Amino acid sequence: MMKELFKGIPKIAYEGAKSKNMLAFKYFNPDEVILDKPMREHLKFALSWWHTLCAEGADMFGVGTADKTFGAEDVMGHAKAKVDAGFELMEKLSIDYFCFHDVDLVAEGATLAESNARLDEISDYVLDKMKQTGKKCLWGTCNAFSNPRFMHGAGTSPDADIFAYAAAKIKKALEITVKLGGNGYVFWGGREGYETLLNTDVKFELDNMARLMKMAVEYGRSIGFTGDFYIEPKPKEPTKHQYDFDTATACNFLKTYGLDKDFKINIEANHATLAGHTFQHELRVAAVNGAFGSIDANQGDMLLGWDTDQFPTNIYDAMMCMYEVIKAGGFTNGGLNFDAKARRGSYTMEDIFYSYIAGMDTFALGLRKAAELIADGRVDEFVKERYSSYQTGIGAEIVAGKIGFQELEAYSLKKEPSLPKSGRQEYLESIVNNVLFQG
Amino acid sequence: MMKELFKGIPKIAYEGAKSKNMLAFKYFNPDEVILDKPMREHLKFALSWWHTLCAEGADMFGVGTADKTFGAEDVMGHAKAKVDAGFELMEKLSIDYFCFHDVDLVAEGATLAESNARLDEISDYVLDKMKQTGKKCLWGTCNAFSNPRFMHGAGTSPDADIFAYAAAKIKKALEITVKLGGNGYVFWGGREGYETLLNTDVKFELDNMARLMKMAVEYGRSIGFTGDFYIEPKPKEPTKHQYDFDTATACNFLKTYGLDKDFKINIEANHATLAGHTFQHELRVAAVNGAFGSIDANQGDMLLGWDTDQFPTNIYDAMMCMYEVIKAGGFTNGGLNFDAKARRGSYTMEDIFYSYIAGMDTFALGLRKAAELIADGRVDEFVKERYSSYQTGIGAEIVAGKIGFQELEAYSLKKEPSLPKSGRQEYLESIVNNVLFQG
Amino acid sequence: MMKELFKGIPKIAYEGAKSKNMLAFKYFNPDEVILDKPMREHLKFALSWWHTLCAEGADMFGVGTADKTFGAEDVMGHAKAKVDAGFELMEKLSIDYFCFHDVDLVAEGATLAESNARLDEISDYVLDKMKQTGKKCLWGTCNAFSNPRFMHGAGTSPDADIFAYAAAKIKKALEITVKLGGNGYVFWGGREGYETLLNTDVKFELDNMARLMKMAVEYGRSIGFTGDFYIEPKPKEPTKHQYDFDTATACNFLKTYGLDKDFKINIEANHATLAGHTFQHELRVAAVNGAFGSIDANQGDMLLGWDTDQFPTNIYDAMMCMYEVIKAGGFTNGGLNFDAKARRGSYTMEDIFYSYIAGMDTFALGLRKAAELIADGRVDEFVKERYSSYQTGIGAEIVAGKIGFQELEAYSLKKEPSLPKSGRQEYLESIVNNVLFQG
Amino acid sequence: MMKELFKGIPKIAYEGAKSKNMLAFKYFNPDEVILDKPMREHLKFALSWWHTLCAEGADMFGVGTADKTFGAEDVMGHAKAKVDAGFELMEKLSIDYFCFHDVDLVAEGATLAESNARLDEISDYVLDKMKQTGKKCLWGTCNAFSNPRFMHGAGTSPDADIFAYAAAKIKKALEITVKLGGNGYVFWGGREGYETLLNTDVKFELDNMARLMKMAVEYGRSIGFTGDFYIEPKPKEPTKHQYDFDTATACNFLKTYGLDKDFKINIEANHATLAGHTFQHELRVAAVNGAFGSIDANQGDMLLGWDTDQFPTNIYDAMMCMYEVIKAGGFTNGGLNFDAKARRGSYTMEDIFYSYIAGMDTFALGLRKAAELIADGRVDEFVKERYSSYQTGIGAEIVAGKIGFQELEAYSLKKEPSLPKSGRQEYLESIVNNVLFQG
Ligand SMILES: [Co+2]
Ligand SMILES: [Co+2]
Ligand SMILES: [Co+2]
Ligand SMILES: [Co+2]
Ligand SMILES: [Co+2]
Ligand SMILES: [Co+2]
Ligand SMILES: [Co+2]
Ligand SMILES: [Co+2]
Repeated sequence: MMKELFKGIPKIAYEGAKSKNMLAFKYFNPDEVILDKPMREHLKFALSWWHTLCAEGADMFGVGTADKTFGAEDVMGHAKAKVDAGFELMEKLSIDYFCFHDVDLVAEGATLAESNARLDEISDYVLDKMKQTGKKCLWGTCNAFSNPRFMHGAGTSPDADIFAYAAAKIKKALEITVKLGGNGYVFWGGREGYETLLNTDVKFELDNMARLMKMAVEYGRSIGFTGDFYIEPKPKEPTKHQYDFDTATACNFLKTYGLDKDFKINIEANHATLAGHTFQHELRVAAVNGAFGSIDANQGDMLLGWDTDQFPTNIYDAMMCMYEVIKAGGFTNGGLNFDAKARRGSYTMEDIFYSYIAGMDTFALGLRKAAELIADGRVDEFVKERYSSYQTGIGAEIVAGKIGFQELEAYSLKKEPSLPKSGRQEYLESIVNNVLFQG
Repeated sequence: MMKELFKGIPKIAYEGAKSKNMLAFKYFNPDEVILDKPMREHLKFALSWWHTLCAEGADMFGVGTADKTFGAEDVMGHAKAKVDAGFELMEKLSIDYFCFHDVDLVAEGATLAESNARLDEISDYVLDKMKQTGKKCLWGTCNAFSNPRFMHGAGTSPDADIFAYAAAKIKKALEITVKLGGNGYVFWGGREGYETLLNTDVKFELDNMARLMKMAVEYGRSIGFTGDFYIEPKPKEPTKHQYDFDTATACNFLKTYGLDKDFKINIEANHATLAGHTFQHELRVAAVNGAFGSIDANQGDMLLGWDTDQFPTNIYDAMMCMYEVIKAGGFTNGGLNFDAKARRGSYTMEDIFYSYIAGMDTFALGLRKAAELIADGRVDEFVKERYSSYQTGIGAEIVAGKIGFQELEAYSLKKEPSLPKSGRQEYLESIVNNVLFQG
Repeated sequence: MMKELFKGIPKIAYEGAKSKNMLAFKYFNPDEVILDKPMREHLKFALSWWHTLCAEGADMFGVGTADKTFGAEDVMGHAKAKVDAGFELMEKLSIDYFCFHDVDLVAEGATLAESNARLDEISDYVLDKMKQTGKKCLWGTCNAFSNPRFMHGAGTSPDADIFAYAAAKIKKALEITVKLGGNGYVFWGGREGYETLLNTDVKFELDNMARLMKMAVEYGRSIGFTGDFYIEPKPKEPTKHQYDFDTATACNFLKTYGLDKDFKINIEANHATLAGHTFQHELRVAAVNGAFGSIDANQGDMLLGWDTDQFPTNIYDAMMCMYEVIKAGGFTNGGLNFDAKARRGSYTMEDIFYSYIAGMDTFALGLRKAAELIADGRVDEFVKERYSSYQTGIGAEIVAGKIGFQELEAYSLKKEPSLPKSGRQEYLESIVNNVLFQG
Repeated sequence: MMKELFKGIPKIAYEGAKSKNMLAFKYFNPDEVILDKPMREHLKFALSWWHTLCAEGADMFGVGTADKTFGAEDVMGHAKAKVDAGFELMEKLSIDYFCFHDVDLVAEGATLAESNARLDEISDYVLDKMKQTGKKCLWGTCNAFSNPRFMHGAGTSPDADIFAYAAAKIKKALEITVKLGGNGYVFWGGREGYETLLNTDVKFELDNMARLMKMAVEYGRSIGFTGDFYIEPKPKEPTKHQYDFDTATACNFLKTYGLDKDFKINIEANHATLAGHTFQHELRVAAVNGAFGSIDANQGDMLLGWDTDQFPTNIYDAMMCMYEVIKAGGFTNGGLNFDAKARRGSYTMEDIFYSYIAGMDTFALGLRKAAELIADGRVDEFVKERYSSYQTGIGAEIVAGKIGFQELEAYSLKKEPSLPKSGRQEYLESIVNNVLFQG
C-alpha cells in the first residue's frame, strides 16, 4: 500500500465475543470453518464503492458532513485516491469483494467518450490493485438515475435518445465488470417507474425495459460474461412507483419477457421492508422462484418510509437471512454487499470502521446462529412433520395429481376433518431465542 | 315482492345533481347512454351478499350493531329472508348483479352433506327470484377461511384432509355459481399465506395452491363454466403474508403454474392500497398483464392499516378507475361489486341505502368524468406525444429490435442527448381538476 | 387447587439457558436478585384476563379456534371456571399479578343492576382465591367499547345517556378494583375518538372525556383508591382516530384539563409502534413528562397495520424497555401486564404456556441484559460525555438561564464553532450487540 | 419591474371554470367576495422562497434538473436575482405574501459576521421591492438544519457552541423578519430530535429547546415583534424522531414550558399525513388547543413515506382545510404558504406557473366549496343535533359539572339506555360530494 489513508487504524483482528476492543471482530473469523466452509466463503462480504468511498452524508435537508476527498484535488487523482482508500479498507477489514457503479469509480466526463476514457483508465488502476491484493469484484452496475437526463427513466425513458444513451453507458459498465472479473451485473431501476400514471404508458415502458435487458444479455454473453444478471427490486423511491417493486413483481416481469434464464434477484434488506415484506420473505420468494442471486446487506428503519441503508446490526434478521442462504445452497455468483452507509452524524473515518465491523460481525454471528439452528434441528423437524399428511394416503394422491374435485368431495363426505395441529408460533420463536442466547 | 322488508324506502330514482333528496341518485341514471352504452352496462353494479345481508358491524373490539335477522328465526328461514332482502335492495337500488360466498347464502350445516343440501335448497330459491326479476349473478366464491379448520389455509393447509375439504367446498360453490349463471368464480386467499416462516414450506404450499386451482379449472370447464376464474389479491390480512399480495404477484404465480389462460384478476381498491399501490395502479398492471377481470369497488382509509371496506366516495379514484376500465375495453365477464360495508356506527336500514347510493353515484360520476376526460383529449394527447420519439429514427429501430448496444453506443458517441421534455405532472393534474369541476 | 384444568402441565421451573425443556424457564428465575431486587419485583408480571381466559381466537375473517369454556355451562359457572383457570395459570407460571376488565370477570347481565350483582359475586370469589394464593391485582378497568351502545364512544358519546351509563360502569369497575386491592385503574379509549370529522365536535368530546375522568378521580379518592389512574394510548383502532394517540398526546390532554397529578401512562408496546414510535420512545416520553406508570407487554408486527398483541419475543426491545424502567426508578404501582394473545393458529392449552414462557423469558432476559448494559457502562458514559459542554462556560450559562440572544450572538461572532463530535450510532449499536451476545 | 425573467408568461388572469387556458386561473379571483371578504384575504397566499427560488430538483438519487441561477454569477447578484424573480412571480401570480429562511435570501458567508452583513444588504433590497409593490412578508425563519454543524440539532445540540450559534442565527432571522414587517416567525425542528436513543438525553434536549424558544420570545418582544411564533410539527424526517411530531405533541411541549401564550402552530398538510393524521385533523387539534396559526399548503403522497411537498391539487382536502379555517375565525397573523415544489421532472419555468396555478386554484375552489358547504347547512345542523342531549336534563347536568358517579349510576339503574343515533357517515360524505359537484 503506497500511502496509508486511515492512519492509526490497524488491520482488524478477530478477538472473540468477550473482547471489549471496538476495533476488533467479535464474531467474524474469516478462515474459521462453519458447516464445511470458511466463514469468508459463506459470507462473501463486499464493500460498496458508492456509500463507502463517495457519499458524504448529504440528505434532503442538509449537505455532507464527511470528507471523502482523501486529499485529492483533480478528477483522476480523486478517483485513484478512492481506489487506494477502498483497497486499504478491504485489506484492513478482511473484505474480499467490492461492488461499483460506473460513476463511483470516476466522475462522468463532458461527453460519453470522455467518460469512457476515464473508466478505461481507472479500471486499469483497479485491476492492478486487484492483482496485487487478490481482492475481487462481486458485481458492477451503471448509474442511470442521477443525471438529469434520466429524470424520466433510462430504459423506460419516453425519449429514445435517452434510451440509447443508457444502453451505451450500460455497455461500458458491463465491459468494465467483465474486465474486472465480476460475476454479476445489477440492474437497479432507480428511475424505471412512474411519477404519475397521467403521463405514463406503462406497457410501452415495460416492453422497452425488456428490450434493454435483452440487449444487455446478448452483448454481455458476446463479450464473455458468464455470470448472473440481477434485478434489484425496490418499491417506491425515488419514483412514485418503480417497476421492480419486489421479488415477485420482478419475477413476473422476467417470466413475461423470457428473461428468467439469465436474470436472478439481488435482494436488499431495506428494499424488502419498504415493499411491505420481511427480508427473509424476499429471500424465500427468490428461492421459490429459482431466482436467488445476491444480497445487499443493510437494514432499514421500520418506522421510516425511505431507504435508510443502515449498517445491519439486527441479529435476528441476519440469522434468518443466513438460514435462507444456507437452505438455498449458499452463494454461487452472489455475495453479501454492504449497501449501507454510516449515519450522517457518524461522519469520521473511525465511523467507517465501526460501521463495517458492526455489519460484518452481525452477519458473522448470524451465520453462526443459523448453523446452530440447523444443528439444533427442532425447527426443521417441526416443519417436516407439519406437512407429513401429504406423504401418504389422500395427501400423496393430491401431490401426485391423480385426483380431482370429485374424488376429494367423495372423501370429505365420508370424513369430516378434525382441526389441523397447532402452528406453535410462540414455541418456535422461543427455540430461536434459545439458540440465539444459549451462548 | 312478497313482503317489503325496507318499508318506507321507495325505489331510488335518478333526480340529477341539483337534487337535495338523499334517497335519490344524483349521477346514476341506469339507461342513460355514455360512450355508446347505457350506464348500467358500463358499471355492472353488484350487491355483495356478505357485507349487505350478513355482516352486522362486529369489529375486533365490539359486537354487531345492526340487525340482519330480517325477522327470521330458523336457518333456512333466515337464508330465504336474506334472499328476499337482497332482491328488494337490488330492485329498489337498480342493481343488476349480485355476488356471494357459499356461506353467505346459508349457514354451514353440521356436515358437508348437510351444507350441500342447504345450498341446493337456497340456490333454487335464488334462481326462482332471478327468473322473476331478471337480476343476475356476477360471480360466486367459497368461504374457505372463516371456519377454524382453515386456520392454516385451505389449498395451502399443511393438513391434507383440509385440502380435500376445501376442494369439496369449492366444487359445490362452483356448481352453484354455474347453476345461477355466474360468469365469474373468485379465489380470495384469505388464509392462503403464512403467519411465520418458521413453520412454513412456502414452495410446497404454492405448489398445492396451484394444484387446487388446476382442479377447479378442470372441474369447472367439465360442468360448463365458460366464465373467468379470478384471483383477488390482498396483501396481509388476516395472515401475516398472503400469497396473492398484489396483481403482479398473482400474475407471477399464474404464469409459473400455467394458469394464466383461465385466470384473471379481481381487483379490490382497498386491497390495492394495503399493498402500497393506488387502485389505478393495480388496474393498469392487470391490463398490462392481459389479466384485467373484475373489480371490488370500495375504498380504504390511507391512514389505517387494515381493510376498512368503506363505500367508495372519492370521485378522483372512481374517475381514474373508470378511465382504466374504458381503456381496457370495458368489462366482459366482470363488473363492479360493492365489497363495502356501512360503518359500524351507520347501523340502520336507511344507512344501507345511503351507503349504496353514495357508492353508486360515486362510480356513476366517475364514469361521466372519465368520459369527459377522454373527450377533452388533452391528457391522452400528451401521453401520445410524449413517446413520439419511438415512432421514427433510432426510437423506431429500438422498438423494431433491429439494433443493440453497439449501434446505440455509436449513436450516443455522436449525439450527447438533450434533457427530455418536462413530465408536466402539475399541468396534467390541473386538467383533471378542470374536467372534474367544470360542472 | 380444587380441580386441575391444565392437566399434564407442571409448575414451570427455572432450568437455565441451556435447558431444552420447552416447559421450563430459561431466564426467569423469580427470586434471583438482579440490581438489588428479586426478578419478580423488577418485572411484576401480570396475567391479562381478557386474552388469556376469554378470547378464543376470532379475527375479522374467522371465528374462534380455541375453547375457553373450561367445561362450564352457565354464566356464573363459566366466570368461576375462568377464575380457577386464571389462578392455576398464575400459580404454574409464577405470575404474581392479574389485570381485568369488568366484562372479563363475568358477562354483562340484562341490566346494570344485574351486571353489578354478578360483579359483586365473582369478585368475592376472586378475593377468596387471592387470599388463598397471595396473588395480587395490578389494575382494573371497564370495558366501555364492546357493547353497541358505546359505538360512538363512552365518555365522548354524543348521547348523554351513554355518558351516564359509562360513568355507572366505571364506578363499579373502580369499586371492584379497590375491593381487590388494585393499585391502578386504566382508561383505554377504545371508542373515544372519531370515525369522521364530518359528524364530530372534537372540543366538546374532549371536554366531556375530561369531565368523566375528573369524576373518576373524585369518586376513586372518596372510596380509598390511592393508586394511579392510567391512560393507555392507542392511535387508530377501532376508531379512525382515538384521542389518546400516543403518550405526548395523552400528556397534552392531561395538562390541559389539570389531570396530570392523578394520571400516569400505561404504555403498550404494540400501540407505540402503531403510533409510529418505538416502544422505548414511548417509555422515554412518559418518563420525561413525569408520567411513567405501567406497561402492557406485548409486541406488534412492524409490517402490519393493526394491533396484533403478540407475546413479546424480541430481546432487543425487552432489553431497552427494562433499561428505561430501571432508569425511571422501576415500577411503583405499575408492572408488566401481558396484553398478549397466542396466535389464532396456536389454539391449544399448551400454547398458552408456551406463549407466557416465551414472553416472560423475553423480559427476564431483557432485564438481565439491561443490567449488564448498565454495568458495562460504556453507553451511559458516552451520553454523559456527549453533553459535557453544558457543564462549564457558555453551556453552563445557557442552562443557568443567565444569558440571551445578545450574549450568544456576541459569543458566536467571536468563535465560529467546530463540528460537533460524531454521534457514533454504529459504535453504540455494536456495544448493545456485544452485551446481548457475550453469553 | 427592471428585467423580465419569466418571459412570455403574462400576468395570470381569472377566466373562470370553463377556460381551457392553462395559464389562467379557473377559480382564484382575488377580489371576488366570498363570505364577506375578498378571496385574497381569506387565502393569504404566500410564495416560499426556498422551493420556488432556490431548489433545483435534487433528490437522494439525483442532482438538480432545474436552473435557478436566473442568469446571475456572484453571490449577491444571485441573491438579488432571486428577489427579482420572486417579486415577478408574486406579481404575475397575484400572490400577496412571501416566506423565507435566512439562507434562502442569500448564501451563508464564511463567518457569522459576513452572513449577517449579507442579510442586511439583501433585506434592504427586498424591503425596497416591497415598498414598490405592496407585497408583504408572512413569516420568516432560520435554517438551523442544513449546515453540518447542526447535524445533531441546533437548540438540542449536545454541543453548547452550536446552541450559541443557532441562537445568534435566529436572532438575526428574527431581526430581518421584523424589518420586513413579518407577523410570524417559525421554528421547524429539522434536526431537533434524535437518531438513536442510545446517545440521547431527551429531557435535557427538550429543556434546552425550551430555553432557546424563551430567548427568542424575550428578544423578539424586545425588538417590537408583536406577531406569532409558530412551531411547525413534522414527525420523522430528517431525524429518526423529531420532537415536534404533531400538533398535540407540540402543544404538550408548549404547555410544559409555559410557551403556549406566544406560540401557535404552523400546520403543513404533508407533515400531518406523515404523522398518521389527516390535514383536517391537525387543523382541528390546533383549533381545539387554541393554537391555530398558519398553514403550509401542500400535499403528500399517502403511499410514500417522506415529505414530497407536492403542490396541492386535491379539492377534498382543500375544501375541508378552508372549512376548518373559516370555523376557526379565519387567519389573523397566518396565511397559506405554498411549501411546495414542482416535481423533479417538471423542471421548466412554465412548470413553476402551472404548479402555482394548480395550487392556488385548488385552495380557491376549496374556499368556494367550504362556503357552499356552510351555506348548505346540512352538515353543521347534523352535528348540532347530534349533541343535543347535552342541552337539557342529565346531559346539561353533566356539562354543568353538578353531578358525579353516584348520581349517574342512580340515573342509569333507572334507565337502561337505547342505542345512540346512527353516525350517518356515508350520508354526510354524500352531502360533501353533492356540494362539491353541484357545479
Ligand atoms: Co441496494
Ligand atoms: Co437501499
Ligand atoms: Co374483495
Ligand atoms: Co376488502
Ligand atoms: Co393494552
Ligand atoms: Co394492543
Ligand atoms: Co413546511
Ligand atoms: Co414538508
